[in-house]
Amino acid sequence: MNDVSGNLFVLNSIGIIHSPNKNKAPHQTLDNDQGEFKIVLDKKFVKGLHLLDNFNYIYVIYYLDKVMRDNKMIISPPWANQQDVGVFASRSPNRPNPIGISVVKVKKIIDNIIYISGIDAFDGTPLLDIKPYIDQLDAKSDANYGWVNKEDNENHLALHIQGIPHKH
Amino acid sequence: MNDVSGNLFVLNSIGIIHSPNKNKAPHQTLDNDQGEFKIVLDKKFVKGLHLLDNFNYIYVIYYLDKVMRDNKMIISPPWANQQDVGVFASRSPNRPNPIGISVVKVKKIIDNIIYISGIDAFDGTPLLDIKPYIDQLDAKSDANYGWVNKEDNENHLALHIQGIPHKH
Repeated sequence: MNDVSGNLFVLNSIGIIHSPNKNKAPHQTLDNDQGEFKIVLDKKFVKGLHLLDNFNYIYVIYYLDKVMRDNKMIISPPWANQQDVGVFASRSPNRPNPIGISVVKVKKIIDNIIYISGIDAFDGTPLLDIKPYIDQLDAKSDANYGWVNKEDNENHLALHIQGIPHKH
Repeated sequence: MNDVSGNLFVLNSIGIIHSPNKNKAPHQTLDNDQGEFKIVLDKKFVKGLHLLDNFNYIYVIYYLDKVMRDNKMIISPPWANQQDVGVFASRSPNRPNPIGISVVKVKKIIDNIIYISGIDAFDGTPLLDIKPYIDQLDAKSDANYGWVNKEDNENHLALHIQGIPHKH
């Protein structure tokens, strides 16, 4: 049975993402090698992790519960010289359905805890789903950077990948 | 404001995915070059598409509303010699939160309609979000196939990428 009521869908948190990055932390550079990024899955789902550690990368799908939403369709990232960009052409957390997706490495899985590489999500973020990142389906060698200036933003994107807080 | 009530989150459909693949269609091979895959976004969100066509690939995030859910944590895909696999180590649509994610090419965008390459979603599937697929964030050249036998499944995965119905 689906949780469908008209056009509304109800989802449930199935776990919690833990990160060194607290909601109220000042935006500053951390040495995240000293921090720990992990997902604590609700124990009732633990069997669902069987063979997940065979994958180099996984998708982590989460609910962006810390975001103030104002439903702007055009945003202007300060790091992008305040260029006007549609919200769907951005990874801004301020979007109509506040779903976040990150590709992370699986380091190890112990019981219901998945130790992962850096993730750009605050500590305590509710988990919605985990999926394997499968080479042929998901790794596109002809992907590009769209409107993002590759040269200007390689370092900035690397901070997102590593889950390192930084000024925006 | 977030739509948070305890651990429940409410999301809204923001558009509809259209595909040649109807819910009740027999599983058979279609020539999808003759079919059309497109996303019709609710017109009130159309400004959010600004510059999206700069990207070669996008993520399409949708609600798997056609799936009968039985909350099994272990599944046995027939195409994988019925190997036991955890649901989070699979892309099965039958999962605790029925969110689907597909990486597709953007062909063209006209007003609120995004013409895309093949997507493995039934016609009429509710859209939850669109995000740009950004090379450095999302394209992992060292991704692997996990428990999936690459040689046996290249053709099978290609059918998923093209959105071609097939026996399972």
